[in-house]
Amino acid sequence: MSAYYGDDKPITAFATTPGKSALTLIRCSGKGAVDLASSVFSAPEKIKNASGNTLVHGWIVSANEKIDEVIISVFRAPKSYTGEDSLDISCHGGFAAGKAVMEALKLAGFREALPGEFTFRAFMNGKLDLSRAESVMELVSAKTETGRRHAVTRLSGALETEINEIKKMLVEVLSGAEIFLDYSEDEISADADEKEGKLPKQDIALETLARLKKLSISWQHERIYQEGFLAVIAGRPNAGKSSLFNLLLKEDRSIVTEIPGTTRDWIEAWVSVEGIPIRLVDTAGLRDSADPAEKAGVERSRKLLEDAELILYLIDGAEGVTAEDKAFVAEQRGKTRPLLVLWNKCDISTMPSDLLAANAISVSAKTGDGDAQLYAAIISAVQAQTAATDLQTAALGSQRQKNLVDVACTALEEALALAEREEPLDIIAPLLREAVNALGEITGEVSTADILEEMFSKFCVGK
Amino acid sequence: MSAYYGDDKPITAFATTPGKSALTLIRCSGKGAVDLASSVFSAPEKIKNASGNTLVHGWIVSANEKIDEVIISVFRAPKSYTGEDSLDISCHGGFAAGKAVMEALKLAGFREALPGEFTFRAFMNGKLDLSRAESVMELVSAKTETGRRHAVTRLSGALETEINEIKKMLVEVLSGAEIFLDYSEDEISADADEKEGKLPKQDIALETLARLKKLSISWQHERIYQEGFLAVIAGRPNAGKSSLFNLLLKEDRSIVTEIPGTTRDWIEAWVSVEGIPIRLVDTAGLRDSADPAEKAGVERSRKLLEDAELILYLIDGAEGVTAEDKAFVAEQRGKTRPLLVLWNKCDISTMPSDLLAANAISVSAKTGDGDAQLYAAIISAVQAQTAATDLQTAALGSQRQKNLVDVACTALEEALALAEREEPLDIIAPLLREAVNALGEITGEVSTADILEEMFSKFCVGK
Repeated sequence: MSAYYGDDKPITAFATTPGKSALTLIRCSGKGAVDLASSVFSAPEKIKNASGNTLVHGWIVSANEKIDEVIISVFRAPKSYTGEDSLDISCHGGFAAGKAVMEALKLAGFREALPGEFTFRAFMNGKLDLSRAESVMELVSAKTETGRRHAVTRLSGALETEINEIKKMLVEVLSGAEIFLDYSEDEISADADEKEGKLPKQDIALETLARLKKLSISWQHERIYQEGFLAVIAGRPNAGKSSLFNLLLKEDRSIVTEIPGTTRDWIEAWVSVEGIPIRLVDTAGLRDSADPAEKAGVERSRKLLEDAELILYLIDGAEGVTAEDKAFVAEQRGKTRPLLVLWNKCDISTMPSDLLAANAISVSAKTGDGDAQLYAAIISAVQAQTAATDLQTAALGSQRQKNLVDVACTALEEALALAEREEPLDIIAPLLREAVNALGEITGEVSTADILEEMFSKFCVGK
Repeated sequence: MSAYYGDDKPITAFATTPGKSALTLIRCSGKGAVDLASSVFSAPEKIKNASGNTLVHGWIVSANEKIDEVIISVFRAPKSYTGEDSLDISCHGGFAAGKAVMEALKLAGFREALPGEFTFRAFMNGKLDLSRAESVMELVSAKTETGRRHAVTRLSGALETEINEIKKMLVEVLSGAEIFLDYSEDEISADADEKEGKLPKQDIALETLARLKKLSISWQHERIYQEGFLAVIAGRPNAGKSSLFNLLLKEDRSIVTEIPGTTRDWIEAWVSVEGIPIRLVDTAGLRDSADPAEKAGVERSRKLLEDAELILYLIDGAEGVTAEDKAFVAEQRGKTRPLLVLWNKCDISTMPSDLLAANAISVSAKTGDGDAQLYAAIISAVQAQTAATDLQTAALGSQRQKNLVDVACTALEEALALAEREEPLDIIAPLLREAVNALGEITGEVSTADILEEMFSKFCVGK
């Protein structure tokens, strides 16, 4: 565990994205945070004497210079997000004001917070369990309205409740087994269940297993809401990739946010199709190039294609199918990932019948012809990968949780199998205990410093 | 004036930039805003009964669905930014949570705020004068630390004070003139000043004029802090434009923020050179192209070159000077804007002596050779355009203010000229009154609805 996570020193971080906005929020928390902040405030006593849950107006001042006019929210331990004394400083927006206030705070003695450190402290101070801590980050990252709903359900504690219920049942199974361990075989009249190759609380064990499996499967669906469904647009230069990208973005209701790539190689945006967040990427042309910059771009495009969950391959209708197009489609058809072949520029050309037979779609990125068919094809490709799972109230919210649920499942299945082979309880009980511990790790009841650090370091700074 | 500006209905807007951040802040203000917000809050009475300057924790709820867990800052009129009942709602960050909360607020009856509407209301309610209202927006847009300082000085009222002082002096001159207007010429024994072709308070008038001129000139400098100094990198494809762009950004201390263009045609970033914000743009290659997309890019590049305040033209040292390079430089040399010719790739080539004689700079964007000379040249180009002006405490903060100061200057100069020609005071006095009114318009003492709307509509939403 790093030297930092786990102390209660005053920390600070930006809680909002710097940008041309009205306000910027800076968060501070820790032992003595309120007194420390008062040392850079125009009216120190106002801050020092402020009760919890009150607002104070004034200036951040450093070396006798006015830095920014601010409003400070004062929270007193334990009534704060972290459970510590905390402050939210609302500065003017833009890039310069918040930066200058942050400098003043650091000069006063605040340390820059590590990623997730505020939520880490909240967890350590018993404000939320680990599954809810994860849902905080999930909520912040939610790309669509449906994704937000799922996160809020977990934040409200639906998953925590389900895990705790399952764990309670498992503990009952475990105690049932341990009762027998306390006595020698001769002392107990073997009960019916045990005789027939069953655990002492076989029914409960089976229900537990079913609920765990349902949780495990829920991640297939949830994962897509969090990470998005990667759809990559590919095709030869001038096939109309950018126009198709823009066409798919054009439906105003579907735009979540545009995140232009920082290089010129590719541009991506998140679009929401039926509430499912799709990470749509427009790659650079795939042409071979001697220019090293362009070469690097083509390589990045190939990597994206490898990771794609759906490829939209554009054929330039004005040019017709080229050898390059054929090679690409042949290569991709050999893989498991879905490929949609699109005949573009159908406003000035006609798709050949063999492509039609091969389920290619005729579109015009320019005029929008064929877009309904295209959307339908994208939706069915996404649904094909999520069809097995139903939405449910208690669903998993992270890969970490999924792994732990699977550990519990495997241990419980193994325990049931051993019982069926009428193996002694003293080799079965440890498996049941392993399952209980795995569930305790999901909520954070059982956890090590390493696990916590690993988990919280994935959070964003300021959370 | 629009139907909207000027009412006191409950309005709402995002006050922070949506993004992957810990929090998103939504601002609400207006008559009945607190009660209205309580209708979408999990504990309505807590909000309704909240005193001003307090914080309330709970959930935004809409149609019985939990939307997001929030902390609400409650402000009561007149103790708020706008002077009205107001709320700042701190939601979870990211794109989805804030959006859902905003939807709930609009459903409850909040109207989306117009740009600058919060500050407009603050002005109307006497919370700040117009020059300080402008400095709020300036602060939000500040690109560098120096820019922030200037804005803070104006926000603290330095400009307001200076304008009011000058105006007071002008009013004294005006009253001096008006006293004479009240009497016929025969009744007054003409005083010395008037006899010699001077205004009754000539000394004060001259000092006023000097201070107004100083203010007017201050805008030359201030404008650059606000709008930035546009430096455009141009050159043939592969001349190394992107590498030079990256070299200039590489100095970590100089990066303000990178704003990648939304198209692939150009990329821009703000860099701070000696505290002066420079908007650095890397254009697409200037080559003629048949590809319509590339053609549009080249056109946008040409437009940027037209607007540039400095052009950095790169010659590909590996290829030597081409006819295209010569044509570009010859064309630009005929214009008034500064042009720096750079011989790039000096690590593998040597700049010809004729270029050296023409003050071209030899650099290697790859190795960084020659960067000190390049920086010096950029700084001196920037300074050449701002040299005439000194930094001063009271300086203008907007083109609007500059125009009004110039109106006052011109009117006062005209009045002095008329006095010199011994024209009667009844044609001089209106000019003095015009000057006084122009200054009153700067602080907003004299203003029309149109002027106000025009001014505030340039603000960002949420401010």
